[in-house]
Amino acid sequence: MSEIMNRQSGLVISAHSADFVWRAGGAIALHVEQHYNMHIVCLSYGERGESAKLWRKGSMTENTVKEIRQQEAQKAAEILGASIEFFDLGDYPLPRDKEVLFRLADVCRRIQPHFILTHSMHDPYNYDHPLAFNLAMEARIIAQAEGYRPGEKVVEAPPVYCFEPHQPEQCNWKPDVLLDISDIWEKKYQAIQCMQGQEHLWEYYTRVALQRGVQAKRNIGITSNKTISYAEGFQSVYPRVTENLA
Amino acid sequence: MSEIMNRQSGLVISAHSADFVWRAGGAIALHVEQHYNMHIVCLSYGERGESAKLWRKGSMTENTVKEIRQQEAQKAAEILGASIEFFDLGDYPLPRDKEVLFRLADVCRRIQPHFILTHSMHDPYNYDHPLAFNLAMEARIIAQAEGYRPGEKVVEAPPVYCFEPHQPEQCNWKPDVLLDISDIWEKKYQAIQCMQGQEHLWEYYTRVALQRGVQAKRNIGITSNKTISYAEGFQSVYPRVTENLA
Amino acid sequence: MSEIMNRQSGLVISAHSADFVWRAGGAIALHVEQHYNMHIVCLSYGERGESAKLWRKGSMTENTVKEIRQQEAQKAAEILGASIEFFDLGDYPLPRDKEVLFRLADVCRRIQPHFILTHSMHDPYNYDHPLAFNLAMEARIIAQAEGYRPGEKVVEAPPVYCFEPHQPEQCNWKPDVLLDISDIWEKKYQAIQCMQGQEHLWEYYTRVALQRGVQAKRNIGITSNKTISYAEGFQSVYPRVTENLA
Amino acid sequence: MSEIMNRQSGLVISAHSADFVWRAGGAIALHVEQHYNMHIVCLSYGERGESAKLWRKGSMTENTVKEIRQQEAQKAAEILGASIEFFDLGDYPLPRDKEVLFRLADVCRRIQPHFILTHSMHDPYNYDHPLAFNLAMEARIIAQAEGYRPGEKVVEAPPVYCFEPHQPEQCNWKPDVLLDISDIWEKKYQAIQCMQGQEHLWEYYTRVALQRGVQAKRNIGITSNKTISYAEGFQSVYPRVTENLA
Amino acid sequence: MSEIMNRQSGLVISAHSADFVWRAGGAIALHVEQHYNMHIVCLSYGERGESAKLWRKGSMTENTVKEIRQQEAQKAAEILGASIEFFDLGDYPLPRDKEVLFRLADVCRRIQPHFILTHSMHDPYNYDHPLAFNLAMEARIIAQAEGYRPGEKVVEAPPVYCFEPHQPEQCNWKPDVLLDISDIWEKKYQAIQCMQGQEHLWEYYTRVALQRGVQAKRNIGITSNKTISYAEGFQSVYPRVTENLA
Amino acid sequence: MSEIMNRQSGLVISAHSADFVWRAGGAIALHVEQHYNMHIVCLSYGERGESAKLWRKGSMTENTVKEIRQQEAQKAAEILGASIEFFDLGDYPLPRDKEVLFRLADVCRRIQPHFILTHSMHDPYNYDHPLAFNLAMEARIIAQAEGYRPGEKVVEAPPVYCFEPHQPEQCNWKPDVLLDISDIWEKKYQAIQCMQGQEHLWEYYTRVALQRGVQAKRNIGITSNKTISYAEGFQSVYPRVTENLA
Repeated sequence: MSEIMNRQSGLVISAHSADFVWRAGGAIALHVEQHYNMHIVCLSYGERGESAKLWRKGSMTENTVKEIRQQEAQKAAEILGASIEFFDLGDYPLPRDKEVLFRLADVCRRIQPHFILTHSMHDPYNYDHPLAFNLAMEARIIAQAEGYRPGEKVVEAPPVYCFEPHQPEQCNWKPDVLLDISDIWEKKYQAIQCMQGQEHLWEYYTRVALQRGVQAKRNIGITSNKTISYAEGFQSVYPRVTENLA
Repeated sequence: MSEIMNRQSGLVISAHSADFVWRAGGAIALHVEQHYNMHIVCLSYGERGESAKLWRKGSMTENTVKEIRQQEAQKAAEILGASIEFFDLGDYPLPRDKEVLFRLADVCRRIQPHFILTHSMHDPYNYDHPLAFNLAMEARIIAQAEGYRPGEKVVEAPPVYCFEPHQPEQCNWKPDVLLDISDIWEKKYQAIQCMQGQEHLWEYYTRVALQRGVQAKRNIGITSNKTISYAEGFQSVYPRVTENLA
Repeated sequence: MSEIMNRQSGLVISAHSADFVWRAGGAIALHVEQHYNMHIVCLSYGERGESAKLWRKGSMTENTVKEIRQQEAQKAAEILGASIEFFDLGDYPLPRDKEVLFRLADVCRRIQPHFILTHSMHDPYNYDHPLAFNLAMEARIIAQAEGYRPGEKVVEAPPVYCFEPHQPEQCNWKPDVLLDISDIWEKKYQAIQCMQGQEHLWEYYTRVALQRGVQAKRNIGITSNKTISYAEGFQSVYPRVTENLA
Repeated sequence: MSEIMNRQSGLVISAHSADFVWRAGGAIALHVEQHYNMHIVCLSYGERGESAKLWRKGSMTENTVKEIRQQEAQKAAEILGASIEFFDLGDYPLPRDKEVLFRLADVCRRIQPHFILTHSMHDPYNYDHPLAFNLAMEARIIAQAEGYRPGEKVVEAPPVYCFEPHQPEQCNWKPDVLLDISDIWEKKYQAIQCMQGQEHLWEYYTRVALQRGVQAKRNIGITSNKTISYAEGFQSVYPRVTENLA
Repeated sequence: MSEIMNRQSGLVISAHSADFVWRAGGAIALHVEQHYNMHIVCLSYGERGESAKLWRKGSMTENTVKEIRQQEAQKAAEILGASIEFFDLGDYPLPRDKEVLFRLADVCRRIQPHFILTHSMHDPYNYDHPLAFNLAMEARIIAQAEGYRPGEKVVEAPPVYCFEPHQPEQCNWKPDVLLDISDIWEKKYQAIQCMQGQEHLWEYYTRVALQRGVQAKRNIGITSNKTISYAEGFQSVYPRVTENLA
Repeated sequence: MSEIMNRQSGLVISAHSADFVWRAGGAIALHVEQHYNMHIVCLSYGERGESAKLWRKGSMTENTVKEIRQQEAQKAAEILGASIEFFDLGDYPLPRDKEVLFRLADVCRRIQPHFILTHSMHDPYNYDHPLAFNLAMEARIIAQAEGYRPGEKVVEAPPVYCFEPHQPEQCNWKPDVLLDISDIWEKKYQAIQCMQGQEHLWEYYTRVALQRGVQAKRNIGITSNKTISYAEGFQSVYPRVTENLA
């Protein structure tokens, strides 16, 4: 038990309930394998903006959409080995107020993450994504402040990574980290398949993983012995502190 | 002996004979401690542009300046534990031709570096610095090519890091890596003191190391247990490939 | 009648009631000539920030300023051949809340625009302008969402263009489209003359049109047969999809 | 008395009650020496986010923290020769609403500043800083508008300068003005020493001033006669209008 | 015959002999279908840097590599319906001198292209690519100059498009044009298969085309009637001049 | 005489023989009025790329074009009150070699300028312009080096300003200095009229001056007492060092 308590942890902040699967499913599963506690916060279910296929079925209510989306996300999280919670804030637009910030800061305090994954800084196709990025960033900073809920253990300085948006160049997103997810790809693809309402994205994100895999291989050297088939790209927000450059 | 041969190595490409000390002396000494073979190439002695104090002494010839600069650099490299070679290309301006590229590519092939340190991409105060960056980059790419001196062992894909220029913001240089050099700071400061012709820079670069140290500490969390007193900043050119994000 | 209903349409979102004239009057008149239904939304009358001349007359109330500004804008829209509506949200600052977003999204749904014209992303001289840009962008995205007012016809993906701000370089605005408005320039200049309170801008924006005309001519080739005297510049937000590159 | 009324003035907008000391203390003291009326607005006391040392003392309340911070800031302002007022808006996060904007616009109207100093546009370590920047910018623009509180004397077009953030490169802050503060450095350092709760920053910002001093000297020429020991860096928002380029 | 002479034309400038296939094969075939004369210039065969698989076969000479590469490229051009010429300048590095510029300017004059396709402005993995971009740009400008070979018909102002590099985000390449190549995809894939020495790239560039297809579809609207399966992305260098914004 | 020797001076480096008139004619005349020695270097006559109208006259030789261009430039310089010299390096392309650098560095040493005016860093319409910028920058740096022609008086650190290119936004040129040239506008316009071969540009650059005038007025405040009718914009390369911010 105490062993579990001492595990390192990672926090994933997802604007809509499926984002974490396409964009960070590999990172989640990989760190679970490395004995991290991975925790996901879904700010909304994406009931308005990311559930087109469900709505087109007809005779659908917002509540049903949200329920289906929650079930899908929960199943995906389970497959990946992560815990998950839903803020149910509503999407298009996501709200932005002090209460959300504090709620998210409290999650940071509770999880004490060793790294945070969230959306890109810009996205001209989706205003909820950069908003989620900003909520994540500001909540983390509040959670670091000694004067916020004084006496609680503050958060240190977990690195923040932006995961891949749908049209990366249009979002000015430039990956500086390529994570080798070859070994747990099958698990990610299983999680992807939970998203019954967005089947058109399954192959799209499989190809994303394959392309990032080829690029990762290129970045370690074509002639190196290591094989990489699937990867995920991330963009760091902060400089990393290290003792080795190789 | 073969053990030494199998060591990992790092390559430092320095436009003038003192750059490697101010900008990467910590990285060099630190990796030597970690049993890397560190090798330095000085493209020029900086005899024209970086030897003002020597010239002001009067009755100085270019040859004498170069000799003094070489001795200083050699002594500094020795203190840091690195090997060093001098291309003696002349500075202000550094030449740029195929011969230099191939000579540098050949060093890459010989050293087979696991990482490369060189100048920043821009520097409105010094045109030799970005030129050295471009020579280093292009030479590395040529050294990766199977069709260059076919049959030789090609270079894999060593990461390239740009070290800190004199006025970082004016050079659009943004560090994404902070290297903790606290443990070997004394060695770096000893090497710095070899640069008799540029004494005005000793305290400047001591302060740089202290500032980067404070920033590194901030980036791991003020409340973390680790102490960092001195650091060096680097900007990566390529994405890194990794299996862990914490 | 049904013919009119089937016309293509364009939507112009203007922070203050005169912006659309200076910045997009040519585009509006030109597309009206091409049988587009052009519709303008003025978020505010610019009663505070863009009516200096009126206020300096003395014995002026906000209501009178708004009335005069509305009459001017209405007359200009008429000349250009466009329909116009006024949100009357107040300026300096424009409000930003869900209600405005939804009201604007509803206009998008009603108009089903084939393209949208609005302000630049940045403007250090005017905070209402980038805010109008963001409202336009987010409203368009909401109007695309199946889950927003389910059952209504969603908006497809109309391109968004940012029109020219007052000091383009300071706004980081870079035109990638130059629209030849030579043929309808007279109409634009007539509309400009409706803006009695901002006479100092008449010649300024005439010169803007002339400069963009010279640049347009340069971009098709000085030796080409086509003459261009007046143009308007626009910056695209999204990539265009095409089947020809010439 | 009337002489004092006719003095030129400068306005400093500080997110937290100590920011103005580290980042603009030299500029304040220097312009006071030049007979400017310098006025400081502290939007908050930084009671949550910038008072770690106080909180760690234990048995501290928010009110006590705010009182101590106010006393420190007041003492520092006195040493620098500036007047100061406290908005006490609360930090982490600073609020952003129309009331704050108007309150700040009213200060602009009252002070009629010839220049404004405030935070950088970006800061991934502190969301209050760019927010303060945006409040300052927008309030200045409102204060320029004839239609805001019609009849009052409007503000002309005071230049806005962003002062140095804690990790300049990470904030994309690039100084284009270096202010020689050598002559009043002692005053700035005295003001710095008022900040009892942030002693770890005293030496950090002394080194910042020394580095900017070396850079300023470099930018006027190593061989010029003028000596510069300490400087502060600023980034301009607007182009300056001048009649001489030397 | 004269009909053919009057056709519009497009010029493709390719650093190495296979680049045009992966990056612009679709654009070439599509414009051939639209009765354009498409002409390709290969500056080098990529014999050093892009022929790894051939070199690994052993007992290979540079001449053989070049011959094989030429045959492959010629066959691919034939399939796409384009004419092709080889400058055989040598790669890694490509030379850059006045003679190359003039040779390329002369091709521009001869072809009188209505658009030009070439490499991206930056590529940290390949220095020949941005060099080819710069050669293409400068040659086009020289070909526009009345004083270059006076009396010859100058080139007007053909738009220049940068085609997709291997790792687009790392090259700061951002597509603003998506070309629908669905109808001629089969032809492009046939041309791709000519590149026997780079089989590992066949599936990579098939996925690129599929991803750009999905993105193109997204940029015209998911609910629009048009289907797009394959696309190529391009980045424009110059603003386009147009009379319609839809 | 010695008085003249002691005057401050400015150096203008112009790629082609007319550039200095359109882009810096006002700055030159204004500083001459302020008793500066202004000196112009024309790297080429622009005989190939900027003399279209002359070439179209027929029966023209390169020598005649150069002669006419030289006479025009000389006359313009005279009107502005500046000295001028011609390097006659040839344009399209300008050469770039050590000899040119040293020749230009020697001019810097001779003139000992208090500021330097030259071209913008980027220009996709003209490769000679950024090349001239780079030559000017590097020559200035060489002229600062004690080891270049040891014993000569080195250059201090004159600020460098980029003057306005033809299509400013396309060149990523952003003015941060607006120079009020209202008082000497007539002189600039006279100099402009010397350029008989480029009459189409007279009104273009008159409008540029008027637009920059309006912007300058806006940047000091519409309500300020000062009138500005004509201005020139410049972009600084280096931070300025100052003792006052108003």
